[in-house]
Amino acid sequence: MRDKIRVGVLGATGAVGQRFVELLADHPYFELSALAASDASAGRRYADACRWMLSADMPPQVIDMVVCETAPGIDCDLVFSALPGTPAGPVEEAFAGAGYGVFSNASAHRRDPDVPLLIPEVNPGHLSLVATQRDTRGWERGFIVTNPNCSAVVLTMALAPIHAAFGVRSVVVNTMQGLSGAGYPGVPSLDSLDNVIPFIGGEEDKLSFEPRRMLGKVKEGSVEPADFAISAHCNRVPAREGHLETVSVSLVEQVTPEQLIEAWRSWHPLPQQLNLHSAPQPPIVVRPEPDRPQTRLDRDAGRGMAVSIGRVRPCEVFDIKFLALGHNTIRGAAGASVLNAELMLAQGMINV
Amino acid sequence: MRDKIRVGVLGATGAVGQRFVELLADHPYFELSALAASDASAGRRYADACRWMLSADMPPQVIDMVVCETAPGIDCDLVFSALPGTPAGPVEEAFAGAGYGVFSNASAHRRDPDVPLLIPEVNPGHLSLVATQRDTRGWERGFIVTNPNCSAVVLTMALAPIHAAFGVRSVVVNTMQGLSGAGYPGVPSLDSLDNVIPFIGGEEDKLSFEPRRMLGKVKEGSVEPADFAISAHCNRVPAREGHLETVSVSLVEQVTPEQLIEAWRSWHPLPQQLNLHSAPQPPIVVRPEPDRPQTRLDRDAGRGMAVSIGRVRPCEVFDIKFLALGHNTIRGAAGASVLNAELMLAQGMINV
Amino acid sequence: MRDKIRVGVLGATGAVGQRFVELLADHPYFELSALAASDASAGRRYADACRWMLSADMPPQVIDMVVCETAPGIDCDLVFSALPGTPAGPVEEAFAGAGYGVFSNASAHRRDPDVPLLIPEVNPGHLSLVATQRDTRGWERGFIVTNPNCSAVVLTMALAPIHAAFGVRSVVVNTMQGLSGAGYPGVPSLDSLDNVIPFIGGEEDKLSFEPRRMLGKVKEGSVEPADFAISAHCNRVPAREGHLETVSVSLVEQVTPEQLIEAWRSWHPLPQQLNLHSAPQPPIVVRPEPDRPQTRLDRDAGRGMAVSIGRVRPCEVFDIKFLALGHNTIRGAAGASVLNAELMLAQGMINV
Amino acid sequence: MRDKIRVGVLGATGAVGQRFVELLADHPYFELSALAASDASAGRRYADACRWMLSADMPPQVIDMVVCETAPGIDCDLVFSALPGTPAGPVEEAFAGAGYGVFSNASAHRRDPDVPLLIPEVNPGHLSLVATQRDTRGWERGFIVTNPNCSAVVLTMALAPIHAAFGVRSVVVNTMQGLSGAGYPGVPSLDSLDNVIPFIGGEEDKLSFEPRRMLGKVKEGSVEPADFAISAHCNRVPAREGHLETVSVSLVEQVTPEQLIEAWRSWHPLPQQLNLHSAPQPPIVVRPEPDRPQTRLDRDAGRGMAVSIGRVRPCEVFDIKFLALGHNTIRGAAGASVLNAELMLAQGMINV
Repeated sequence: MRDKIRVGVLGATGAVGQRFVELLADHPYFELSALAASDASAGRRYADACRWMLSADMPPQVIDMVVCETAPGIDCDLVFSALPGTPAGPVEEAFAGAGYGVFSNASAHRRDPDVPLLIPEVNPGHLSLVATQRDTRGWERGFIVTNPNCSAVVLTMALAPIHAAFGVRSVVVNTMQGLSGAGYPGVPSLDSLDNVIPFIGGEEDKLSFEPRRMLGKVKEGSVEPADFAISAHCNRVPAREGHLETVSVSLVEQVTPEQLIEAWRSWHPLPQQLNLHSAPQPPIVVRPEPDRPQTRLDRDAGRGMAVSIGRVRPCEVFDIKFLALGHNTIRGAAGASVLNAELMLAQGMINV
Repeated sequence: MRDKIRVGVLGATGAVGQRFVELLADHPYFELSALAASDASAGRRYADACRWMLSADMPPQVIDMVVCETAPGIDCDLVFSALPGTPAGPVEEAFAGAGYGVFSNASAHRRDPDVPLLIPEVNPGHLSLVATQRDTRGWERGFIVTNPNCSAVVLTMALAPIHAAFGVRSVVVNTMQGLSGAGYPGVPSLDSLDNVIPFIGGEEDKLSFEPRRMLGKVKEGSVEPADFAISAHCNRVPAREGHLETVSVSLVEQVTPEQLIEAWRSWHPLPQQLNLHSAPQPPIVVRPEPDRPQTRLDRDAGRGMAVSIGRVRPCEVFDIKFLALGHNTIRGAAGASVLNAELMLAQGMINV
Repeated sequence: MRDKIRVGVLGATGAVGQRFVELLADHPYFELSALAASDASAGRRYADACRWMLSADMPPQVIDMVVCETAPGIDCDLVFSALPGTPAGPVEEAFAGAGYGVFSNASAHRRDPDVPLLIPEVNPGHLSLVATQRDTRGWERGFIVTNPNCSAVVLTMALAPIHAAFGVRSVVVNTMQGLSGAGYPGVPSLDSLDNVIPFIGGEEDKLSFEPRRMLGKVKEGSVEPADFAISAHCNRVPAREGHLETVSVSLVEQVTPEQLIEAWRSWHPLPQQLNLHSAPQPPIVVRPEPDRPQTRLDRDAGRGMAVSIGRVRPCEVFDIKFLALGHNTIRGAAGASVLNAELMLAQGMINV
Repeated sequence: MRDKIRVGVLGATGAVGQRFVELLADHPYFELSALAASDASAGRRYADACRWMLSADMPPQVIDMVVCETAPGIDCDLVFSALPGTPAGPVEEAFAGAGYGVFSNASAHRRDPDVPLLIPEVNPGHLSLVATQRDTRGWERGFIVTNPNCSAVVLTMALAPIHAAFGVRSVVVNTMQGLSGAGYPGVPSLDSLDNVIPFIGGEEDKLSFEPRRMLGKVKEGSVEPADFAISAHCNRVPAREGHLETVSVSLVEQVTPEQLIEAWRSWHPLPQQLNLHSAPQPPIVVRPEPDRPQTRLDRDAGRGMAVSIGRVRPCEVFDIKFLALGHNTIRGAAGASVLNAELMLAQGMINV
């Protein structure tokens, strides 16, 4: 058995950082050797610096780890970044420049032409941008690979097999997003109780852009986005976790709901073929009930890594309409980047 | 000052029935003279038969009223029906046949060709069907007039002025509907807490059909629906009251968001011209904030009778997208039928 | 008709500040002439500086008022203080020293021996401390009068008539407190959803101390607390507003539940005798139902100024147990100080 | 390895029944061979008859099991009863009379003098009543053993070690109970959202009686209850699962909080000594944080079988006050009866 890769988490005390810690604590390929956080936390025991919010207990092996500063030099080969958007930009570049592989959940570099915005099931070929990235930026060993926005990953997983089979022409999507997507402390309870907040800053733009980039093709060192339009309505609802999306889609080919269901059920992309540790089997769960998926009941499907689909039916205006649901802090954040790292490792792109 | 019209409420102890009682208790044109409910309640004091759920106290004048049976013969000239769908059909016909005017919130007769499905601001001309109805059914004085489904009234109010001005071509709507829409006991808390339920039986069909009927034209004693398609996604969210809807709309004419806002703001339909007691002034409130309307903050606009609109912006797939919100048990149920009665009274169609 | 007294609100943009604005906007004795807030807000329109959170709309007359700085010199004779605890101390003294009457909701001066901690129904005689205060501090016209903690006012109102009639010997109280008591942004929704938080910093100490002070007697310029013990358990529950308390009480005299109910129902203290504008009639509502008062249904009793009591029954350990409920931001905060000011005005203690 | 005991669940489709199914599906000592439910469900596949509500998926092995009728003759040796109170009485007797061991969560037989009301950690000796029961009722092999009410098990676990060490003299307890305790559909969301319901029918009486019975001693074939009084206030709060209780206790001996904590931490009762499958290690978790246990964060401690205690501090009225929390449908219902069965099996009291 080969040695485990030593990994660190940047922003390890926050909501997404805790999910990284939970997913990496007993990981078969990775060993958690560094927990980095803000200067206020650095030097403290992780258990003291972190207000643990997940329902499972804090993994025992991290309780006494000492939080380190968020700067190159920390003891690991790869870092998973749960940093907020603004600081993430330069910090992640500094780590990559210093030779670390950076798997980022931040939005800072998602639109850089030479940075892969990756879902292993959808666009593993975009990893070819890593070579471009190193050329362009003069990095020898380091790199940055990003995972998409939490709403975008759900929609893109749902669209990928039907775009491949039938061609997507246009999409209207409405999200009902759980509270954890806003981080901690995030949404005040006086705003969320008995309410819906029909606005999430920047979210609709990400949801219009990112799926088209991931479903696009790499040409000469950058990505040509897929040629269709997405209109998004994004809403915050009083559920803890899980992003539920209603989707109306127009397709190039005329299809029945049964054909879409077949496309989803028969989808067996690369991470599932490689049987990667975090790859859900199957990646998409199509539910037959009239009222599923539901946020609370289905967000944990595939240990939070599967996307659940349901209510596939004809659309009066477009061709087909359906529901898609995913876990926003696992498949939509920490789990997404962990799977990205597993894919690169399996493909021999990580050498330490 | 003329005498008040004596009115009754059918299904007076339920969730919508209580709203009727609240709205009619101090009404300037109507006097509440009969409260009808199920056989189990008949003969009891209203305060004993009814589990009052509204936050304001039960109006003092109804506390000691004795609940009567749900059958013609009760002491009033008009009845407001908050009956459930199945019993509503024959019971409402029996009342109309016996000479009562029936204002119904039930869905039983909404699709009868000779029954007006009415929003006074939108299609007051459809009241001409009352004459057809009497001819067809051999009723001399009685009639049935219905109000639309709670989601449909919000969408139809929003579409009416822009359909008149620019022509609607197609609509994709996603609802996030409050719990009171399911009545009492309705949704179990184990289903609603920390969850979204993406299914409401029959609702999407109503929302596809009813707005087109109300925006249609009466021709030879029946209604020709407006010629456009509506695709609906209906969801139950954990908010007490208020139905929030995201709408993407394609229009015949090319317009800007500002033109739509102007059409909504300048709308001054008949009930507002007549200054009817329950007619909100203005009927539509266009909010300028980036994150409004919100369910809790805006559902009570215009004492629950106004529709609030916001986030009017270009749609990447259609022409324009926006939010619409209304109070489902006031504008979407009891208040809707009360306003229907006020309009008929003002137009001399109620003689007692 | 005499002129209205000109009043200001300190901390006017916060949760309690907004309640003060709502209650004072159309007040018959007071005219809102100054809205003070933090330096960041000063100079801005109130509508721009304030994120209005109450369900009724912002009163039109305050929308365009310009927010002023929180320092003496502002244009009014009395100030209502919704300042946070720490800054409240010196700021309120500065205002009182400059000649303003200060009615404070802050905890800073509640334990000063010469400052009245006042509930007009309970201890109007404690206003004699104002003279002591002026002597001690060398203030000619200004003064500070405080209202109690939001949980303490509910318990003290409930205890006052039974302490007077039968003598309280000891009390065990458990609170279930609404979210608004923590201010805004206050409790994160990730902490409140599907949870109870059994800890509120400093609350149990206030609830053990303040009722005994208010039920005590003024002797030689300071208050001798009532001689009984209170043990408090304080919890935060996911309800918007309203503090519900379960109370077990031991009394000096042996009494029946009916005797307690009679004591509450026949209570007619000074503010009700004087028919003060904000004094609820009656001050205590005793509910007969087996499951009332409930937070949502009863918090607005007496426009949020009444305390509701229910389930009065024998206690297996003490003598009697019962429920008490009050609205924490009205009777428990802003409304409390407004009633304090009304009482002093009615007693000729405010001359401008 | 011995064969597994074949067991059935009565009321297998309800909220507690589902927990039994979940806990027994992969149990090392028991094999789930019969699922009984109402006549309407009998003959259907379990997956069709049951609206599965737990967040983990339905165990695969029960999906295709055919639901049987609720009458002796079903294929198993022991039954776990999740029946509602009224039918449970005669049905459980019929099963016991027919030779089945009955482990009941219902309240029907909890007060029968010859029926053990059992918490294995607290009163394993009460199992001697099984012999009395067989004598009295003429049962050869069958028996009934009950588990306590969900609130009572939490309080009794907390009191047991301190009663043994220091003697309990009196208790005032206030519960804040999760929604699942009311079963399904249970509490309507219109009642629970933004509310506390301070009444649960029959609960306070059970909580006053059951702990004293379990802490009592068997004398001549019946139980002499422990000699102290309990006063209970029971409330329903909007949390999914978990019953949180605040407790003020008076003790015979004068003790410090530290002494109580030591008594809880050093408690190592019989099920833990026997290392029974469902026995949590440790049975009581004492939390050091100032704001724990919290309902959502701690209800799953010890896979839902441990009781969490916190905030142990002096009480101003009694001696000590503290918090106790347990999972109401695991430790407070299904898990309780499963542990009862494990204890009897380990003690050789189940022979099949």
